[in-house]
Amino acid sequence: MKDLEKMRHTLSHVLAAAVKELYGNVAFGIGPAIDNGFYYDIDFGDTKISDSDLAKIEKRMRAIVSAKLPMEKRVVSKTEALNWARDNNQKYKIELIEDLPEDSEISFYDMGDLFTDLCKGPHVKNTSEVGFFKLIRVAGAYWRGDEKREMLTRIYGVAFKTEEDLAAYLKQQEEAKSRDHRKLGKELDLFCFSDLVGAGLPLFTPRGTELRELMANYSLSLRGREGFKKVWTPHITKTDLYKTSGHYAKFGDELFMVHSQVNGEDFALKPMNCPHHTQIFASRPRTYRDMPVRYMEATTDYRDEKTGELGGLSRVRSLTQDDSHVFCRKSQIKEEVARLVNIVKELYTTVGMQKLSARLSYRSDEDKYLGDKKLWEMAQGQIKQAAIDNGLDYYEQEGEAAFYGPKIDFMAEDAIGREHQLATIQLDFVMPERFGLEFTNEKGEKERPVMIHHATLGSIERFLSVFIEHTGGWFPFWCAPEQVRIVTVNDKVLDYVGEVTKILDKTVLDKPLKYNELRFTVDDSADSLGKKIKRATEMKIPAVFVIGPKDAEEKVVSVRLKDREEKVKLSKIEDFLKKLD
Amino acid sequence: MKDLEKMRHTLSHVLAAAVKELYGNVAFGIGPAIDNGFYYDIDFGDTKISDSDLAKIEKRMRAIVSAKLPMEKRVVSKTEALNWARDNNQKYKIELIEDLPEDSEISFYDMGDLFTDLCKGPHVKNTSEVGFFKLIRVAGAYWRGDEKREMLTRIYGVAFKTEEDLAAYLKQQEEAKSRDHRKLGKELDLFCFSDLVGAGLPLFTPRGTELRELMANYSLSLRGREGFKKVWTPHITKTDLYKTSGHYAKFGDELFMVHSQVNGEDFALKPMNCPHHTQIFASRPRTYRDMPVRYMEATTDYRDEKTGELGGLSRVRSLTQDDSHVFCRKSQIKEEVARLVNIVKELYTTVGMQKLSARLSYRSDEDKYLGDKKLWEMAQGQIKQAAIDNGLDYYEQEGEAAFYGPKIDFMAEDAIGREHQLATIQLDFVMPERFGLEFTNEKGEKERPVMIHHATLGSIERFLSVFIEHTGGWFPFWCAPEQVRIVTVNDKVLDYVGEVTKILDKTVLDKPLKYNELRFTVDDSADSLGKKIKRATEMKIPAVFVIGPKDAEEKVVSVRLKDREEKVKLSKIEDFLKKLD
Repeated sequence: MKDLEKMRHTLSHVLAAAVKELYGNVAFGIGPAIDNGFYYDIDFGDTKISDSDLAKIEKRMRAIVSAKLPMEKRVVSKTEALNWARDNNQKYKIELIEDLPEDSEISFYDMGDLFTDLCKGPHVKNTSEVGFFKLIRVAGAYWRGDEKREMLTRIYGVAFKTEEDLAAYLKQQEEAKSRDHRKLGKELDLFCFSDLVGAGLPLFTPRGTELRELMANYSLSLRGREGFKKVWTPHITKTDLYKTSGHYAKFGDELFMVHSQVNGEDFALKPMNCPHHTQIFASRPRTYRDMPVRYMEATTDYRDEKTGELGGLSRVRSLTQDDSHVFCRKSQIKEEVARLVNIVKELYTTVGMQKLSARLSYRSDEDKYLGDKKLWEMAQGQIKQAAIDNGLDYYEQEGEAAFYGPKIDFMAEDAIGREHQLATIQLDFVMPERFGLEFTNEKGEKERPVMIHHATLGSIERFLSVFIEHTGGWFPFWCAPEQVRIVTVNDKVLDYVGEVTKILDKTVLDKPLKYNELRFTVDDSADSLGKKIKRATEMKIPAVFVIGPKDAEEKVVSVRLKDREEKVKLSKIEDFLKKLD
Repeated sequence: MKDLEKMRHTLSHVLAAAVKELYGNVAFGIGPAIDNGFYYDIDFGDTKISDSDLAKIEKRMRAIVSAKLPMEKRVVSKTEALNWARDNNQKYKIELIEDLPEDSEISFYDMGDLFTDLCKGPHVKNTSEVGFFKLIRVAGAYWRGDEKREMLTRIYGVAFKTEEDLAAYLKQQEEAKSRDHRKLGKELDLFCFSDLVGAGLPLFTPRGTELRELMANYSLSLRGREGFKKVWTPHITKTDLYKTSGHYAKFGDELFMVHSQVNGEDFALKPMNCPHHTQIFASRPRTYRDMPVRYMEATTDYRDEKTGELGGLSRVRSLTQDDSHVFCRKSQIKEEVARLVNIVKELYTTVGMQKLSARLSYRSDEDKYLGDKKLWEMAQGQIKQAAIDNGLDYYEQEGEAAFYGPKIDFMAEDAIGREHQLATIQLDFVMPERFGLEFTNEKGEKERPVMIHHATLGSIERFLSVFIEHTGGWFPFWCAPEQVRIVTVNDKVLDYVGEVTKILDKTVLDKPLKYNELRFTVDDSADSLGKKIKRATEMKIPAVFVIGPKDAEEKVVSVRLKDREEKVKLSKIEDFLKKLD
């Protein structure tokens, strides 16, 4: 166990000790270390605990930390353990102990004389070694995650080795809160939910649709350049397709099932597109001259998530993937992977998330992997070479591959330092086999292709949740739903506004997406200039053109950007806009 | 009954009489007149009838026609009728007679002394007045359309008043056969079906996807120009949405139901998009300044058709609509309808189906119509004025409106004279009411908008089935999936081919769709020139560039179009292509 994890885990105990001192007769559930901190689930009986109680508990914790109490392990028999739990009224601990296998070692940790807890450890040596922490939140949590069991109170804390790390984390959290994509989604009128439609099923407004189409089209355009062709497949299929692909046996009970009342037939909503794409490949005979065959489709898949796990665009039931599949020869893997790696690098650089790392996931020696071991090794070699050739910041990990082939997962860092796994490249030796895909080689023999699955954005909805928070709603100029808003000082400038809009009407951006016609509006309402500018700023319009009589006279526009203002000559507007980031 | 219908109906009897003479003891089902002709369902017992028997039957029919046998009506009692049917072993007629209400008039028609049939009539006076006919096809048909009942043999004939009409119809049929979109879909590699995916669920290949996207984008671009904004909605919804819209009560048992195995919740696949779009309108407060609000979406709806009724793209389960909805004030109806009428005219002119007629469907005096009668009359007046102002070839029909509002249905004539109903404009006074939609008017009061539903192509799949047959697969240049194929005479011209492709790479068409990058391929395979040209012609590539050493020397290309050949200078290629239809 890493030091930091030990520190966090000890803090769970310190938290429990403080709670016990303050509240007396409480029953403890479990208290693990987690990413960035720790928590403890506690049954407070009839006492209600809220965020306002955290300061008091935290104060008590700091006293325990200062007291440098030793953390000492003590191995006990199951009977001793049960006796302790019964004597202390710890009903959840009784349940945990009873569930332990007979031959397992059972241990307690004593925190000096103050507090004892059932625990496997390990811990830091004494309570002064726990680093820097803060309690942040109270939440409800079912005992053992089972909604039929008791609802406990979960107290969350965050903890880091240094004060600076803690401060940085808290600042990041504060920053993340103000960038929350659910909040911005509403403020910037990007998407909405309807109780009549259901949870996890966002509806995109005109602005949000503009944004999602621009991102999807950009992603598709990068692949179009590399020889990918769009295909179209329906959103439902007979389950036979997934029985053949093998998905039904593995994930059949997670599918959204579709029932035809008219014919009594059963279908499923597609949770992925690869099996559909194999059917297009298989629809005609293929030869080595056709290879590689590259399909792409930005289409919506449906995955049945638990209602409690849905939130904004981060996790939805309707996820639109910018999905693609290459059917290639074994010898073409490296070149095809390199193609995709380049696309990923280009896209994430464009959206300002150029800090990209990649995990190359290989097979281990276990026998859960399907397909010939030599083929795996050859393919893993090609993937690695593609990563090296393209200067990827990568690391290799054995045993992380899917059962059907090795893969590359990309981690992109956002503006406030959070990492997100979005793009992926996955080799697949199994699906071509299951669907009997083949092409005729130079010798006239049948050969089996390899499939490469790839999504650049991943799910467009999830990407947008990241992108909205990454930008804080200040989208890059090229993809802002409304790029320019003209705000008039008074009605005397309307003729001049006509001259300006004539230029905007014919302004078409070419980078990073071609044929990107300028999107602008005119606010010539009777409201005050201040009110109009405020409105534009609240909508985070990247370029606000304030036009008054003096601008009209001088044939200029006063442009307000996020971070500066500038006077631009009428004749230079097009050039000016084409250079904006 | 119209004369032609009488003639066709009499031909059913003539057919039956001929069959009886030739085959003796057969049992007759029903024999109605239908569009373009007639049929009779007959139980031949163990005798098997095929298309090769038709000549013999037709010959016998012609003899009966020549005999000028009178068709005479005779009213009989139910008992007489039943006795006749029993005496003649006509078990299906017995069933029909038994099902007749007690008080209904029962009649026979005698064809001279030759043949008697139970029949309401009317008929022509004698068998010589049946016009010109031809038997065309034998098919199976379940008695009363019930798959649990007997399978009868249905013999189809076509019939017209004049020999010319018959010849024209047969020619059209012949022509239609060679244009069959299912056949062309396969030959031109546009779409495919998979048994694993299911009937009525086409998968579009790269070529077909190119075609469908070009058509959809063109349709959307016309509306985008008119202020429509794209939105995006998921393909499933809680049934609550349809309970509120009223669709559930009417069509609930035709919905594809979606079941969540994880949460036990029920959803439905959307069969239309209007209820979803109301939720976007309702997601924020609206004022009169926002009106009209115009949404559009090219999205796939799912309708549960009977398996037996599915065929190619004409009738599918996954239908992608180029759907739009206007939310407007009552006073804005005319202008909004006119906008849509113009779009329809422009699109159908572009695709070469400019012969367009429109039916204006109004309410009748029945009380099945919802919404205020005065509102209806005002709206009908505005629709009519929009039709007149835009020079539409229209006719009015009372009692044909939907219960929720008046509408315009457009009929477009294809290249071989068939009419297809595709575009529609429908007013809706009911849905805004049901969803409680409103906006604030100038006086600060809440006002209810009117909705206008519109699809220009209708379902993209169905439109393509018409368009493929309309063009016979020779698509207009702008929307051909592969517009140009370069065919080389030998490898010496490859450098010159590079010069040509450089020009093609930067050729972008602007009409009727903007930013339409040229789609071309190069066939420089080792096959013979003849074979290469044949391949290009089979794929109906609109422009084939044949390039040989002489072309390279003279800096020209030899272009083969569908109907002519032309030498084009290298420097003129871009202009030449931009002018092609």
